[in-house]
Amino acid sequence: MKLYDSAGAPNPRRVKIYLAEKGIDVPIEDVSIPKGEHRGEPYLAKNPLGQVPILELDDGTVLAESIAICRYFEELHPDPPLFGADALDRARVEMWQRHMEFQLFIPYAMVFRNTHDFFKGRIPQVAEWGEVNRKALTKAFGWLDAELSEREFVAGDRYTVADITAQCGFDFFGKILKLMPGDDHKNLNRWYQAVSARPSAQV
Amino acid sequence: MKLYDSAGAPNPRRVKIYLAEKGIDVPIEDVSIPKGEHRGEPYLAKNPLGQVPILELDDGTVLAESIAICRYFEELHPDPPLFGADALDRARVEMWQRHMEFQLFIPYAMVFRNTHDFFKGRIPQVAEWGEVNRKALTKAFGWLDAELSEREFVAGDRYTVADITAQCGFDFFGKILKLMPGDDHKNLNRWYQAVSARPSAQV
Repeated sequence: MKLYDSAGAPNPRRVKIYLAEKGIDVPIEDVSIPKGEHRGEPYLAKNPLGQVPILELDDGTVLAESIAICRYFEELHPDPPLFGADALDRARVEMWQRHMEFQLFIPYAMVFRNTHDFFKGRIPQVAEWGEVNRKALTKAFGWLDAELSEREFVAGDRYTVADITAQCGFDFFGKILKLMPGDDHKNLNRWYQAVSARPSAQV
Repeated sequence: MKLYDSAGAPNPRRVKIYLAEKGIDVPIEDVSIPKGEHRGEPYLAKNPLGQVPILELDDGTVLAESIAICRYFEELHPDPPLFGADALDRARVEMWQRHMEFQLFIPYAMVFRNTHDFFKGRIPQVAEWGEVNRKALTKAFGWLDAELSEREFVAGDRYTVADITAQCGFDFFGKILKLMPGDDHKNLNRWYQAVSARPSAQV
């Protein structure tokens, strides 16, 4: 199998952190987003949506969507569980993974694609929509900070894929947009330092 | 347990269709979005994000996010499988469920919340962002139509949660926005008629 990655991009990094946490080694091929390789052949034949990452299996089957790729590995390598350990825990991790996407990762992506120079001339940008999401993020930081006063990690007392989603959001969008939690978000900062100190965060 | 629903809203309907497909009966309590009950107590104490649906378990545990709720029931009632039948199939269903969210359901929601009168004065609307998503949807219809030329349902030859997501998108946003696939989207229309004819679509 082979993972198609794009160095620096936040979605493929979610898979790479997941694999590092699991100790799984997968050959990687880089697809350059700045060069537009994700929008041309031969990549589009593998993923018509042009998104990175994909996982290509030995029989040519292609899986897109970072979380779908991680779930596939979770089925093959269930330990340590990063999607939850029993029925309720798996539902709770799913809930928090989705909360991290819809409250954090996607609003961050909205600010990035609608306000950052990288996309100028590449896609239609609506700066005002970026600003709506910038405000939503400030509220989300407060909400997440309060949630993290009650437990060590996003979905409970164990590191999960929900932490990976949030962490990749802050590391990429937060830093590039200079839109990070403030000093008063003490629980969020404590959590961010903890996940950033894990060996998997080096990928 | 109890499912907090909001009659007519697309996200709780995803759970209700799922439950109907499984033949699972769950007591339902309505939370009125037009009356703002989702933004006030006692609902906010259960779900600080104010979103509907939630599933409340007998011990008071609350699960939010429609897909997390469905996954919880899938763990308890695995047959018939609506999230896939083996490792690769589960990954494929996850991929298609997410494709239906990111290519269809969320762009639809973007058009709705940014252009529809219902939200006027309730939230900041950015009509231009609605139009960007309206265009994206037209492309998505063509893409999904081509995908459905190759198989009966969204994720393969079996009805899954990916179909439910798409179906609820068309039924709610598509109809209210008058933004439905055209006559030339023959495969998409064939699929839409088939899923709409299932008894579960009556909920």
